Amino acid sequence: MADASVNRAWRLRRRPVGAMVPGDLELVPEPIAPLEDGQALVRTLVLSVEAASRIWMGHQRAFMPPVGLGEVMRGVGVGEVVESRRQDMKVGDIVAGFVGWQEFCCADDQRLEAPLSVLPSPLPAPVSAFVGVLGHPAITAYLGVDFLQPQPGQTVVVSAAAGSVGSIAGQLAKLRGARVVGIAGGPAKCRHVVDDLGFDACVDRKDPDWPARLDAALPDGVDSDFENAGGPILDHLLMRLNLNATILLCGEVGWHGLVNIDQIHMQRATMRGIIVTDHLDRWPEALGALGALWATGQLKYDETVVSRLDQAPAALTSLLAGDTTGKLVVTIAEPTTIPGHPLTTTPP
Amino acid sequence: MADASVNRAWRLRRRPVGAMVPGDLELVPEPIAPLEDGQALVRTLVLSVEAASRIWMGHQRAFMPPVGLGEVMRGVGVGEVVESRRQDMKVGDIVAGFVGWQEFCCADDQRLEAPLSVLPSPLPAPVSAFVGVLGHPAITAYLGVDFLQPQPGQTVVVSAAAGSVGSIAGQLAKLRGARVVGIAGGPAKCRHVVDDLGFDACVDRKDPDWPARLDAALPDGVDSDFENAGGPILDHLLMRLNLNATILLCGEVGWHGLVNIDQIHMQRATMRGIIVTDHLDRWPEALGALGALWATGQLKYDETVVSRLDQAPAALTSLLAGDTTGKLVVTIAEPTTIPGHPLTTTPP
Repeated sequence: MADASVNRAWRLRRRPVGAMVPGDLELVPEPIAPLEDGQALVRTLVLSVEAASRIWMGHQRAFMPPVGLGEVMRGVGVGEVVESRRQDMKVGDIVAGFVGWQEFCCADDQRLEAPLSVLPSPLPAPVSAFVGVLGHPAITAYLGVDFLQPQPGQTVVVSAAAGSVGSIAGQLAKLRGARVVGIAGGPAKCRHVVDDLGFDACVDRKDPDWPARLDAALPDGVDSDFENAGGPILDHLLMRLNLNATILLCGEVGWHGLVNIDQIHMQRATMRGIIVTDHLDRWPEALGALGALWATGQLKYDETVVSRLDQAPAALTSLLAGDTTGKLVVTIAEPTTIPGHPLTTTPP
Repeated sequence: MADASVNRAWRLRRRPVGAMVPGDLELVPEPIAPLEDGQALVRTLVLSVEAASRIWMGHQRAFMPPVGLGEVMRGVGVGEVVESRRQDMKVGDIVAGFVGWQEFCCADDQRLEAPLSVLPSPLPAPVSAFVGVLGHPAITAYLGVDFLQPQPGQTVVVSAAAGSVGSIAGQLAKLRGARVVGIAGGPAKCRHVVDDLGFDACVDRKDPDWPARLDAALPDGVDSDFENAGGPILDHLLMRLNLNATILLCGEVGWHGLVNIDQIHMQRATMRGIIVTDHLDRWPEALGALGALWATGQLKYDETVVSRLDQAPAALTSLLAGDTTGKLVVTIAEPTTIPGHPLTTTPP
């Protein structure tokens, strides 16, 4: 705890309009108040940066309220307990949850949006895995694919196929025997999705010919769509739905008006939205399955690692521009209570 | 059978672009061929005209293929068997199904898109009821409300609330204890929906202030939407969805781009399309329930009756303009095999 007297926190100063600009967030040094009973001090090790981060900065109606102006930016991460006045957390515990975009967080169940959870000890995987292949993005993929129930011979489309959710979702659909067609930005990502992740095909959304290429990749139409992007490609896919198709809404970027929504009716399709934190009761089942697949090499997992808290806003901008592959994490500090334990699954 | 030598049939000559114009359909006199084994001759008594009729005239991707150019216009109706070389149909039987926009139809299971079904004898209701309150529109309402599962205290929105499906759907949702808010075109229809059909409120979609009026009618948001219209009002309703809301797509007029589709995700909502002919196994259950409610006066039912086959295109234009209330039927002929049996539930 030598340096645990000053925190640095990204606070929201202004709601971005369109792209984020410097000044929307401010990195503020702040004294750390002495702990009270029922509180623990958590040092952030790894922070997850995701599309939802940008949603929370705006005032759109979302699955969590907007971050208030002046508040610490909301974010999921993994940290270590460095001081504790809680019975259920001891120094050295590794915890996960809404730690915020900051170096230290006060684990006080009365003040946090959701209690932090204590991870198993000894930690069975690198720290960053718990916001990735053993965390909310992979569980989202697991529950989403479970909703879609792809069958052998069916065609599943996965957008943002190189991303943290899509990459896992496509592999899980493949394991169920479906034909999986990814959509990703740029030829390098598309090659990666097919060659490394094992999708049957991947269409480059930046190719002006994407509608024809997508149709060519979908000779038997679409039975399921794991939708991580929305926009004109979703609109196009609506026209390719098979009877009784299912669409899982997991992410939507932009505000393109969907004109083919009548096809949900015509094809007797079902469109549903999923939020992973609604299904905490199924996390143990999901984590068990994902952990086994990952440990036995049946699930490939990518990370983009960015160092240092001050890089968090730039990392988010890069993610929104489509420049990252797999799970984007920001490393904040090396663990001091479990020295030598790997921070990330891949070197930065 | 004296006059059963010449048929008159509306044939599709041209696919309308936007509104229908004279010449898109042509009323053609045609000789009636002698029956072969396995065929029966059916005289149309009552024809159902509906929004789907217009869809079938275009080439949009729909739940049935477009009517081919030169073919008899597709339509559901009720007829009487006036001549038969089928074991399962005798003269005097009253039959329902895809009889087409014509005076006579050849009931040949090899040639019709779907076999006609023989109605009970003696006929337990006026002829037109079997394309209305005891037919596909009411069954659509019944199955749709059953999907939405409205609970007491919940708010259900029903668009095209004065129409053949919406009027029944709203009453069924009321019977389940929900608060029901209709949307209809014009003050007279809105009054009818509230005063006669018993909805809790009805918003006039032609009122320029409809967004504010709709919000005022929805103080507790929207738990279920029985969607018969689509367009900007659906887009507005998406922003008012409650958590785990359900949207049943039953009809969509126009091609307004839905920009708020992300709310399906944010509110963990489910949007599903229904086509009543997918669920023939549930028709007996639905008809039993609807028949009992109607017979005991618990279900109000409206009809707009137009006389004569030559008025069918004008009737459709009137329906698409929103000028009809309840079920629109065209009366073609009085029954000769059950003389005196009422043709419609309401006088023309």
